[in-house]
Amino acid sequence: MPATLSEFDLIKAFFEGVGPKTDVVGLGVGDDCAVISIPSDKSLCISMDTMVEGIHFLPGSPPQKIAYRALAAAMSDLAAMGAEPSHFTLSLTLPVSNYEWLSEFSLGLKTLADQFHFPLVGGDTTKGPLTISLQVHGLIPTGQALMRSGAKVGDIIAVTGTLGDAGAALTILDRVDDKLLTDGQSFLLNRYYYPSPRIVQGLQLRLLASACIDISDGLLADASHIAEKSKVELEIDSESLPMSEALLVEQAGNACGFALSAGDDYELLFTISESNWEILNEQKTSHIYTKIGRVNEGSGVVVKNNIQSSKSMGYKHFE
Amino acid sequence: MPATLSEFDLIKAFFEGVGPKTDVVGLGVGDDCAVISIPSDKSLCISMDTMVEGIHFLPGSPPQKIAYRALAAAMSDLAAMGAEPSHFTLSLTLPVSNYEWLSEFSLGLKTLADQFHFPLVGGDTTKGPLTISLQVHGLIPTGQALMRSGAKVGDIIAVTGTLGDAGAALTILDRVDDKLLTDGQSFLLNRYYYPSPRIVQGLQLRLLASACIDISDGLLADASHIAEKSKVELEIDSESLPMSEALLVEQAGNACGFALSAGDDYELLFTISESNWEILNEQKTSHIYTKIGRVNEGSGVVVKNNIQSSKSMGYKHFE
Repeated sequence: MPATLSEFDLIKAFFEGVGPKTDVVGLGVGDDCAVISIPSDKSLCISMDTMVEGIHFLPGSPPQKIAYRALAAAMSDLAAMGAEPSHFTLSLTLPVSNYEWLSEFSLGLKTLADQFHFPLVGGDTTKGPLTISLQVHGLIPTGQALMRSGAKVGDIIAVTGTLGDAGAALTILDRVDDKLLTDGQSFLLNRYYYPSPRIVQGLQLRLLASACIDISDGLLADASHIAEKSKVELEIDSESLPMSEALLVEQAGNACGFALSAGDDYELLFTISESNWEILNEQKTSHIYTKIGRVNEGSGVVVKNNIQSSKSMGYKHFE
Repeated sequence: MPATLSEFDLIKAFFEGVGPKTDVVGLGVGDDCAVISIPSDKSLCISMDTMVEGIHFLPGSPPQKIAYRALAAAMSDLAAMGAEPSHFTLSLTLPVSNYEWLSEFSLGLKTLADQFHFPLVGGDTTKGPLTISLQVHGLIPTGQALMRSGAKVGDIIAVTGTLGDAGAALTILDRVDDKLLTDGQSFLLNRYYYPSPRIVQGLQLRLLASACIDISDGLLADASHIAEKSKVELEIDSESLPMSEALLVEQAGNACGFALSAGDDYELLFTISESNWEILNEQKTSHIYTKIGRVNEGSGVVVKNNIQSSKSMGYKHFE
């Protein structure tokens, strides 16, 4: 294997066959375009996400983890719409074409793509500062997309999983010696590097929830988007936020602050009527959902029982 | 207008309303995903292209020109499939959010997007080294995509427009004082900055050509892709290459070298049967097509009447 690879060799070696080929893919990598067939009763959901070295991850981060996290984060937008993953594209900009780096990066993508039968169908590779752009595509029955704008007064507010873990991981990310980490710290780091795209939950919520968003910028910041789009107030009870044991131990004094405001968890935040909430809780997977508040008339986000600042601290680029 | 903008403000100010909203767009910018409806008799062609400052364009290049060229180059892949532009997404990574820069960049996109009724439906903006990733989407009647693999022995090889202009422009790109440029040099620079995506020609060729590719890496490099995918030899007559007056004057000694090997023209290279070539030449727009060779049994690309090197010099990343 040569030290440097042409673009064509690189695509062939590392990106063909990531995610199994499925029925939608008419033509994958290797022509001017990929060609995709969409079933006639479905609409296509698309979302594009970019991660830049030094901004979204530390320089020198393990490529397998960068790839997994980037793809999981992008897929999380599909989950938030209630979409089924269909196919994705990758634009990879990197300073040098390093065999080992690419091999690990490809493995990170493959792990998640194979699990969700989510084929990589095309993209671009180019030279430059390490930047990963992913566009993910998902299918929904036409007219059934879960949007941010459907929250109704009286609805319950709920989330999947636990909150704040990824944010807490960021505070220990530069401790490179894995051997010195406690079990709790390892748990938090895994939550940061390997977020679970809540695809299954999104599909479950599609016919039950009234509005949904994924928590990428922090609970308060993302709740404010639902409030704005739905023209309602979201009242969140800070005493009911689901938090991991690891977060409570590692950030004893400030766990609630992380759960309210830290980003990168990629859990789903949704609103749902009382009656649909009961239906949801009859499912086997109901333990993953936690009620955290109520939709009221008004606007914005209000935090009840909050001893810390309720100001939105979600990460905004360019501020 | 504040000196720096939040991501939300930035998208609202500069990217909502680029390209008119069309029937396919169910939901555009402003939710977790854009939602697109594809007509049931159509397939979707997708292509992703990335341009990085210092690699694909000079640092400090005019943003309006960067945007136009990036979008035209990406659309060229749709043209090469015979697809009709449907919608596109943009991931923009930039060091600082500068109002004037973004305003000009947005205008560059808008000029082309409006012309082709090509709406921008989503994307991402983030901080980092200036990088532009575009994903373009187009529609084709299912089963009618123009591919690289259909060239037949005996077919004519032809191209649109003139070749080598953009490559010649690269040699004068760093002469910033526009006032010192000759008319010919201005022409070449315009060919570089404002490539014409050959959408109309792609649609015309869809039912007539046997194989097609857009010339982004240079005629010889891109011809070799058709040769490889179609398992044939492409014989190109270097005396028949269409060249502009400006190229012949500005690069008197080496015009043919530019036409054969320089990239960035984004013209279409296609193969077509004798009988379909006659049909194509009955069209009003036939002046845009030039016959440049013949498809033979064999493999690879052969150049006839070539006094210069016939070695492919197409630009390959990472080499």
